[in-house]
Amino acid sequence: MSFSPLLQQLIQALRCLPGVGPKSAQRMALHLLERDRQAALSLAQSLQEACERVGQCQSCRTLSEEPICALCADEQRDHSLLCVLESPVDMLAVEQTGGYQGVYFVLGGHLSPIDGIGPEDLGIRQLLQRLQQGEIRELILATNPTVEGEATAHYILEQIEDPHLKVSRIAHGVPVGGELEFVDGGTLAHALAGRRSLRKEIS
Amino acid sequence: MSFSPLLQQLIQALRCLPGVGPKSAQRMALHLLERDRQAALSLAQSLQEACERVGQCQSCRTLSEEPICALCADEQRDHSLLCVLESPVDMLAVEQTGGYQGVYFVLGGHLSPIDGIGPEDLGIRQLLQRLQQGEIRELILATNPTVEGEATAHYILEQIEDPHLKVSRIAHGVPVGGELEFVDGGTLAHALAGRRSLRKEIS
Repeated sequence: MSFSPLLQQLIQALRCLPGVGPKSAQRMALHLLERDRQAALSLAQSLQEACERVGQCQSCRTLSEEPICALCADEQRDHSLLCVLESPVDMLAVEQTGGYQGVYFVLGGHLSPIDGIGPEDLGIRQLLQRLQQGEIRELILATNPTVEGEATAHYILEQIEDPHLKVSRIAHGVPVGGELEFVDGGTLAHALAGRRSLRKEIS
Repeated sequence: MSFSPLLQQLIQALRCLPGVGPKSAQRMALHLLERDRQAALSLAQSLQEACERVGQCQSCRTLSEEPICALCADEQRDHSLLCVLESPVDMLAVEQTGGYQGVYFVLGGHLSPIDGIGPEDLGIRQLLQRLQQGEIRELILATNPTVEGEATAHYILEQIEDPHLKVSRIAHGVPVGGELEFVDGGTLAHALAGRRSLRKEIS
């Protein structure tokens, strides 16, 4: 014996969500059907609407239902400063610091030959075209500090033709509020190599 | 800055799922839109179909899209043995033991005056009517071994008019494979009070 066919099908469908295994999917399906069908119906509608209408911003490739996202359309931002990120979540994280006034370019992943993800999947040609238009003054490569993220940043750096464009990489070092004792060796080595002078005359 | 309105709406809608907070909802929404729109659309469809078509079995109140669920319609089962459970998941758990051949009655919760859940919400009148029909030989009260589950079992016991009906409660005791050292006091007290004789002549 098991659940009825439609319930089985719903449990199976819920497993497409990341981090949801058979037990969680079962709990979710029963919760929705027993307690909150209204929410389940509005979730179904949101999923459908988002799938049909959310595409990519033509300028920065973030997820957006408008052809140009609100951030790219904002004339108050500094459009000469471009920050390259792996994902829309990273964009949210940078925005939440409140300290960045430039615009973004979202790759939507990192180079990963083993998964068949190459430069064309990450829109790197589009990025290079944008750099050639000459509006960008500085490019900040803010891919994740992982092997793949570093490789992706390095690849982009190599593709840039203009030798005078300022290109930077976000700093790697000890996290603010952390203790040296608990920082891994790689990070500590980066922190030492990237040390900054505290006295102007010495630097 | 935040995500686009439709994306925000989807993240909010995903939070209706039990155990899903703002961060998980964000991760799920981005995963679906960036990687697996096909799965998202089929999830939307399953949700809608299940909400529209899955109701309660008229006989045992479990979730089913048929008026009578497959288990209640099965003539091979012993329809004189009725097991009362809190939820359809409990039904699945009992079925998976493979040792029960009777039928079920699903309350869909437990008595909880603080949440406004009374006997009428649990279908207790329907259960009593079924007992009055005289087909049931034994009633097994298998609500959860919690304060509310015990209270619900006790309430049902008090409502039964027929003094000759056999009514039992599932045994509470030490879990099979557990160690006494790690069993809580309440369970151990139940295990001692409910001890079973190993020799026929003494019992």
